[in-house]
Amino acid sequence: MHHASDILFTLFVVFVAAQVGGEIAQRLKLPGVVGEIAAGCAIGPSLLGWITPEQIVTGTPLDVLAELGVILLLFAVGLETRLEDMKKVGKVAFVVGVVGVLVPFGMGSVWAHGNGLDWDRSLFVAAAFVATSAGITARVLQELNALQRIESKVILGAAVIDDVLAMLLLGIVVSLQGGGSVNASNLLLVLLGAVGFIAVIGWGGTRVMRWNSAWLDKPLSPHSPLMIVLALCLGLAWLSTLFGLAAIIGAFLAGMIASETRQQHTLEKQTRPLLALLTPFFFVVTGSKVDLHELASAEALWMLAVVTAIAIVSKFIGGWLGSISLGARSATIIGFGMVPRGEVGIVVATLGLAAGVFDNRIYAIIVAMSLLTAMVTPPILAWLLKRSDHATGVIERSGTGS
Amino acid sequence: MHHASDILFTLFVVFVAAQVGGEIAQRLKLPGVVGEIAAGCAIGPSLLGWITPEQIVTGTPLDVLAELGVILLLFAVGLETRLEDMKKVGKVAFVVGVVGVLVPFGMGSVWAHGNGLDWDRSLFVAAAFVATSAGITARVLQELNALQRIESKVILGAAVIDDVLAMLLLGIVVSLQGGGSVNASNLLLVLLGAVGFIAVIGWGGTRVMRWNSAWLDKPLSPHSPLMIVLALCLGLAWLSTLFGLAAIIGAFLAGMIASETRQQHTLEKQTRPLLALLTPFFFVVTGSKVDLHELASAEALWMLAVVTAIAIVSKFIGGWLGSISLGARSATIIGFGMVPRGEVGIVVATLGLAAGVFDNRIYAIIVAMSLLTAMVTPPILAWLLKRSDHATGVIERSGTGS
Repeated sequence: MHHASDILFTLFVVFVAAQVGGEIAQRLKLPGVVGEIAAGCAIGPSLLGWITPEQIVTGTPLDVLAELGVILLLFAVGLETRLEDMKKVGKVAFVVGVVGVLVPFGMGSVWAHGNGLDWDRSLFVAAAFVATSAGITARVLQELNALQRIESKVILGAAVIDDVLAMLLLGIVVSLQGGGSVNASNLLLVLLGAVGFIAVIGWGGTRVMRWNSAWLDKPLSPHSPLMIVLALCLGLAWLSTLFGLAAIIGAFLAGMIASETRQQHTLEKQTRPLLALLTPFFFVVTGSKVDLHELASAEALWMLAVVTAIAIVSKFIGGWLGSISLGARSATIIGFGMVPRGEVGIVVATLGLAAGVFDNRIYAIIVAMSLLTAMVTPPILAWLLKRSDHATGVIERSGTGS
Repeated sequence: MHHASDILFTLFVVFVAAQVGGEIAQRLKLPGVVGEIAAGCAIGPSLLGWITPEQIVTGTPLDVLAELGVILLLFAVGLETRLEDMKKVGKVAFVVGVVGVLVPFGMGSVWAHGNGLDWDRSLFVAAAFVATSAGITARVLQELNALQRIESKVILGAAVIDDVLAMLLLGIVVSLQGGGSVNASNLLLVLLGAVGFIAVIGWGGTRVMRWNSAWLDKPLSPHSPLMIVLALCLGLAWLSTLFGLAAIIGAFLAGMIASETRQQHTLEKQTRPLLALLTPFFFVVTGSKVDLHELASAEALWMLAVVTAIAIVSKFIGGWLGSISLGARSATIIGFGMVPRGEVGIVVATLGLAAGVFDNRIYAIIVAMSLLTAMVTPPILAWLLKRSDHATGVIERSGTGS
């Protein structure tokens, strides 16, 4: 009669683990997100096994809750982001996005080729080095109330461009790997579709809201404006996947559109409990995906160290070079802000495993690299931001709590 | 690279359908929940097919979101319920719970036996008539800001007792159906376990919170008290399933415990966005479970009408008789408040189908009956409550919106 006992237990354990991990991290003066990821690693299949591998594959309830969590997180980040501010940093963000993709892709493929892979496979491996995970950085920026800084805008803008490029690159390496040739006009169409989607939604949506947002209060539901923007968030998240983009890009755009409404402040407050409930699932699930058994050899650990170093250094150089026009201090923050790979590297690794490009060990190493970049970045970023807090002009905004 | 496109589409469609359905219902002066259930029926497998039958079986993402939605709903209802108030209505609630189970069980089994089933099967069918779905009634009471009325306390208390008795009854009919005999000492143990769980958690938990709730603010997380009570909610929801109770009983107790804290008002506000996001999944999924094809004959419709009439009348009589000490007006509200069956009837029907007690048509009829009782009740309840608003003393509380 009373089903769903097991899944309730899992939800409970994941949620509590996230809270405990986050609390410990914060007591150690680390960002809470590091603790949540570490908690996921601890309760995941390779240590405690409270989450089984079957529970975190695509399409399971835990995976969907995690996806919903990161979607809402990027929606909330978008809510604190104005299109006007994004426009101001547009050029720098574009350069950071492009250079920040090219440098890791170049260094990654050279390294993979140097390790004996042919060029087609090397490019595939390199694709796993490319895409920044906006989720991790966004969460750190949010935890530190730093979303209004210019560096944050650049990072977020670059992450959007980054995702478009990563999608194209992945399309290229997958078709190369499949033995096909690259169809340039096809790729151009995909590129135009993605860019067009972002431009039309970003520009048109904010325009509509700025013109009139009173209609959001029309429905009789007491949750009225919130429901409509949540529907927008889910709708654009889904739509952006149709254009080959990550769901979080659509969610971010939805947030940015909603930030133009006069109910923006209420929406921000109402979104916080949603993040409190759902984002822990994302970070714990992310952490639980690393397979420590495959890494239990000196050779594997050494390879992991090299891969992680390349991933960090290459992305940092790309971001730093791209944003040096803002000064060395900002460029350093932006460079590190682009470092986390998180779920995107994991997705590439999964594709590579399925396509037979990677063996289990390279798969585990790439997943671990994604996690390591995600865990190393937040403390550095937190330290850099605090250090420059007094040096640069920060637009203060009302912050945590509700 | 970008997975989860299909499930995102489903989430979007379910969420939007709930909003559209709820809005239409409210424009027609009906409670929003009726529209949400109707929307589920419309987009479900038997009409539009935007939700497939595979998407709503136990353990799928949609099912888990629905479960989470109703858990949070009962948690929120618990947040507005004080143990002290429950104690005041304890006796009446107990009688309503017991009589409200016995009358439908008796009438249901007589009807089933009259239709040619042997007594063992008849008792199984009758079990589907028994359990009130607290979710539907709670939502209506909440929509109408009526949770502080004495009738609401009686209904909620009776729903808890109802669930304990329904669990016992189901245990009996399942073992009778399996050809076994009823083990009285075993049943007594189950009963003691369930009652003990409710008593210990309800009494002990509120005691602890009343004694000191300052520690809820101790964690460094900005979402601090909310996270802890959400963890409590998920934990007790899971724990109550271990005692054979519905997850919502544990969630309700968690809310009642949290209502004793000095952060109760903040928690209430923070819970609202969670309900706005997640409860629509519960009501839409509930609505989508009805199979209209099986009902497409005059005979089936007639049987449905009879079954629904028995379900409504028997529960109303039980609730009314049990609470007549509060006066006819209150007894009428309580009687109707106990009518909705919702998901519990569906669970019994599913068990019956699996055990071979029901064929597909009786299954469809029992599911449809559960839905009909859930859809018929809210308008009646809303009308009764509004009518008596001026007549009886209502403790006004700050209501909708945020």
